Amino acid sequence: MDPRERILSTAVRLFFAQGYAQTGINQLIDESGLARRTFYHHFESKEALGAAYLDFAAGQWLANLGAAFDGRRTARSAVTSLFEVLESFALETRFRGCGLLNMAAEFADAGSEMRARVQRYKDAQRKLLREKFRDLGAAPTYADQVHLLLEGAIAGASAHLDVWPLRTARTAALALLPEEESRR
Amino acid sequence: MDPRERILSTAVRLFFAQGYAQTGINQLIDESGLARRTFYHHFESKEALGAAYLDFAAGQWLANLGAAFDGRRTARSAVTSLFEVLESFALETRFRGCGLLNMAAEFADAGSEMRARVQRYKDAQRKLLREKFRDLGAAPTYADQVHLLLEGAIAGASAHLDVWPLRTARTAALALLPEEESRR
Repeated sequence: MDPRERILSTAVRLFFAQGYAQTGINQLIDESGLARRTFYHHFESKEALGAAYLDFAAGQWLANLGAAFDGRRTARSAVTSLFEVLESFALETRFRGCGLLNMAAEFADAGSEMRARVQRYKDAQRKLLREKFRDLGAAPTYADQVHLLLEGAIAGASAHLDVWPLRTARTAALALLPEEESRR
Repeated sequence: MDPRERILSTAVRLFFAQGYAQTGINQLIDESGLARRTFYHHFESKEALGAAYLDFAAGQWLANLGAAFDGRRTARSAVTSLFEVLESFALETRFRGCGLLNMAAEFADAGSEMRARVQRYKDAQRKLLREKFRDLGAAPTYADQVHLLLEGAIAGASAHLDVWPLRTARTAALALLPEEESRR
């Protein structure tokens, strides 16, 4: 890994696991195994690294959601696949919730640059789901409902420290499919 | 207000608006307008005050949700009322999201006392909705779906800084009502 990647992968791990405020720049430098000067050469501040973390995490997450549609020929099958992705993620991360919303929670001001970034990525998730579901013949309203059920599922799993919210949300998403679709 | 109440109401305001880590004990003491000694007489630590904040916020929130059912005779009408409560809250707080989950986001360790508290209150919300919907003839599964749609709605409103997630989630909650109920 080049130095920039080493810093970023350390940031991804620490910001997600510990939170942004709890992760000091010294820990980031130490665990990247680089000289302080090298660190600042790539990221001028913790804020810059925080923004890069959001970009990276969102890019990866959107790619995972997009891949959940690969080879799926019905909205029903895509929903099942989306919730499989979500369940793997929730279990792997021990119900840590959504990294983007966790970050947003630390930036209270609705006008902050960090929250604007989170908003941009949540908008991108909504758009992705609308496009993918449209290709499978499902309406934008349905895509938005699934989008919110995914948000509720991941928040719920994090709140209850359990998988039942993921399964309950999936059941709801399937029940919301129009009749003709759900009979396929 | 007695000293304890003054400290607690300051904590409710600051922890919710700024986050837990960003709120120092000196600011809490300053804005409570009390002597340091008086502060520590009521709360031995910031952690103790954080826990009291969660207790207070959760109690108030559960009371608001419970009150949304007052005088409602159908599940459909109760759902509408629940989302009215949610929308008022989201607008008043400028899409700050759920105070309990925001707090949980700052305590990464799934085994932490703070996250256990949040889990307890989310479990209490689920239980409340199950009881209230049961009284209106709706099944526990339906109550759980509404519970997760409320979570998704508040997370979504906070992510998108907009009310559309609240309305989309309400539409989904109404669409999930069994036929006989939705025809009433």
